[in-house]
Amino acid sequence: MPRPFLSLSTDFGPGNKGIGVMKAVILGICPEAQIIDLAHDIEGYNIIEGAKLFEATAYLPVGCHVCVVDPGVGTSRRGLIIQTGRGDFLIGPDNGVLIPATRFLSGIIRVHQVTNEKFMRKPVSPIFHGRDVFAPAAAHLSSGVPIEDFGPGVPVKDLSPAAYEEAVFSKGVIEARAVLINKFGSVFLNVMQLEMHKLFTVGDRVVFRFHGTEVVVPYKRMFGDVEKGNEVILDDDFGRVEIAINQGDFAGKYGWKPGEKVVLMKHPRLQ
Amino acid sequence: MPRPFLSLSTDFGPGNKGIGVMKAVILGICPEAQIIDLAHDIEGYNIIEGAKLFEATAYLPVGCHVCVVDPGVGTSRRGLIIQTGRGDFLIGPDNGVLIPATRFLSGIIRVHQVTNEKFMRKPVSPIFHGRDVFAPAAAHLSSGVPIEDFGPGVPVKDLSPAAYEEAVFSKGVIEARAVLINKFGSVFLNVMQLEMHKLFTVGDRVVFRFHGTEVVVPYKRMFGDVEKGNEVILDDDFGRVEIAINQGDFAGKYGWKPGEKVVLMKHPRLQ
Amino acid sequence: MPRPFLSLSTDFGPGNKGIGVMKAVILGICPEAQIIDLAHDIEGYNIIEGAKLFEATAYLPVGCHVCVVDPGVGTSRRGLIIQTGRGDFLIGPDNGVLIPATRFLSGIIRVHQVTNEKFMRKPVSPIFHGRDVFAPAAAHLSSGVPIEDFGPGVPVKDLSPAAYEEAVFSKGVIEARAVLINKFGSVFLNVMQLEMHKLFTVGDRVVFRFHGTEVVVPYKRMFGDVEKGNEVILDDDFGRVEIAINQGDFAGKYGWKPGEKVVLMKHPRLQ
Repeated sequence: MPRPFLSLSTDFGPGNKGIGVMKAVILGICPEAQIIDLAHDIEGYNIIEGAKLFEATAYLPVGCHVCVVDPGVGTSRRGLIIQTGRGDFLIGPDNGVLIPATRFLSGIIRVHQVTNEKFMRKPVSPIFHGRDVFAPAAAHLSSGVPIEDFGPGVPVKDLSPAAYEEAVFSKGVIEARAVLINKFGSVFLNVMQLEMHKLFTVGDRVVFRFHGTEVVVPYKRMFGDVEKGNEVILDDDFGRVEIAINQGDFAGKYGWKPGEKVVLMKHPRLQ
Repeated sequence: MPRPFLSLSTDFGPGNKGIGVMKAVILGICPEAQIIDLAHDIEGYNIIEGAKLFEATAYLPVGCHVCVVDPGVGTSRRGLIIQTGRGDFLIGPDNGVLIPATRFLSGIIRVHQVTNEKFMRKPVSPIFHGRDVFAPAAAHLSSGVPIEDFGPGVPVKDLSPAAYEEAVFSKGVIEARAVLINKFGSVFLNVMQLEMHKLFTVGDRVVFRFHGTEVVVPYKRMFGDVEKGNEVILDDDFGRVEIAINQGDFAGKYGWKPGEKVVLMKHPRLQ
Repeated sequence: MPRPFLSLSTDFGPGNKGIGVMKAVILGICPEAQIIDLAHDIEGYNIIEGAKLFEATAYLPVGCHVCVVDPGVGTSRRGLIIQTGRGDFLIGPDNGVLIPATRFLSGIIRVHQVTNEKFMRKPVSPIFHGRDVFAPAAAHLSSGVPIEDFGPGVPVKDLSPAAYEEAVFSKGVIEARAVLINKFGSVFLNVMQLEMHKLFTVGDRVVFRFHGTEVVVPYKRMFGDVEKGNEVILDDDFGRVEIAINQGDFAGKYGWKPGEKVVLMKHPRLQ
């Protein structure tokens, strides 16, 4: 029988003791667990960045995936378990950080709150639910406790809104937003590759319209397909679309910040 | 039978090759070991910070816990194994870094030096005892070698002093020191919650007297219990007491450094 | 039977999701794998730094060691598996980053390309071969797939040159280069300790000649053997030679950069 698979994503710095303690709590409940660090060092409390990075659960085995980006810890915000179409359990706060990942995991089957103290580490610290609520819930789920036992169901419509919506192709354009800017200044959009491919084909020239400017950028397979210093748009390696400058800083050059709005459309001339 | 549990804490940067090599040395000796990173990226040679973070062993299973913050490596400073009341073995240099954790682990049962070369990796580098002395000792302990076999016993009174003493409630006040300032400027004191609760109750107003100043700070459950920008004192999530500014920088505002002395007393007015 | 041993080295930041995803890919193919992080946070695309850190594989068990420092990903650069004399498989791009480690692993036995798509994760991202090519190759090798099955053999003479050559003792001197400067300003040379010991003995005074300057530095066992602020040369803890200032910044003081050339010779006066 395969070992149960769990992943951890947090806004703790790498090397932070909280990560090790969460693993120890999990192993104390489910000693055969296979635990992997998915993403740490997410910007503190940044739900949008956390949600984008947490989408990479789609590249992990089916399992229990915990995400602790939790500015509301200790308040009345709910703790959640989301069961996905693929069979995963996503565990974390009800602040929208878990939802974008479900779009890559065949959607949401059902959602339960984590309220049953039987499955918490006591005493529950009001400032570290990662250790006392979410890690134990993930471990008990991995050990076979049914999702219903953790607390009442929550209708999907009652969840906090997703950290970001999906851009959709409509009326010949895609109205998109920047959801992540990485340390090189490359920008990731709320555009899935499946959506992008409804309008564009690799090789096209894409018109970007944003705060009064218009830039035409070639849609390529990789950075090296344009000269150093040139703009390029490409499919990123996790299912979304990325705009960058080859060996340069796109966000810096154009003054983009997370949340920046942009309209993508086809270049009128023949490609 | 459960797998033996080990943890590693070091002042190496996360991702440093020394951490991986220590794990490999352990697994070469004790292949069934379960190894967890407790805390890395401790400030280089900072024994006080290291000791505070190493206290989190209290939140790990009973096991062998290695701490490598070792400015005296290669000198005549001793290498130690401390057996705790809870049943752990703490392994590292005799410079005081291991001792504060024992206060959370039911105290010290006995201490032995690590001098038996039979249990070291050869040749022993004079600059990396973590790999050649402490990791092998932890692995052999995990495999069942008795503590006596590693070297002579050391009376507790002959150990290097603890990285910090415990503040105690006496004559109506607690004379404390700052033992850790985190990246947000929050300050952790050498005050255990058990000691704090002898004088104060959550909800009290606490008078802080330090370098000629007096500040009155409410004792609350969590940051969100005070307005943004306000001072607050709370039980941290690892057994000690923390002073902070909600979404601000307490140490910066008041010019506190690690080691800062402060007297805590009750506010004279009725609470 | 022991679990297959794998290590990962990358220029991803610690906590980067790519590392977790590579582990998940490996475990999906070879569930009993024992995976260790050897070195991450290598400077982006820095093949020389990567090669130096990857030499630490010599301190790991025999296994499959993956190195992803890959500026040419997506171009026609080859993916390689190098079998070492010790029995390891080194997996990564053909850009010289893998070769220095083989000098510590009893040399190169044979080399094969990774071209067989049967052993890749599909679709293969043009920008993340770590996940889609190298991690799967390492996992399949660990599961017993023979090296020949991955692709055609490559004669050693057809490989891209090593990230650096070895300095050799010749005509009374060693002409060396700096291959790594760490965060403290200590410099690591392309000089193996075995080569160093042909000319020098610990206790000697070593003359360094570089860009018109000459500095005489004592060859010692450890930093503490010289006063704070003084230069010292020593055997590092991974088989090479290191020049440093005790609690100071050698590279900063003398303006050294990676690649700096230096000639080492004996001091003419009796030692």
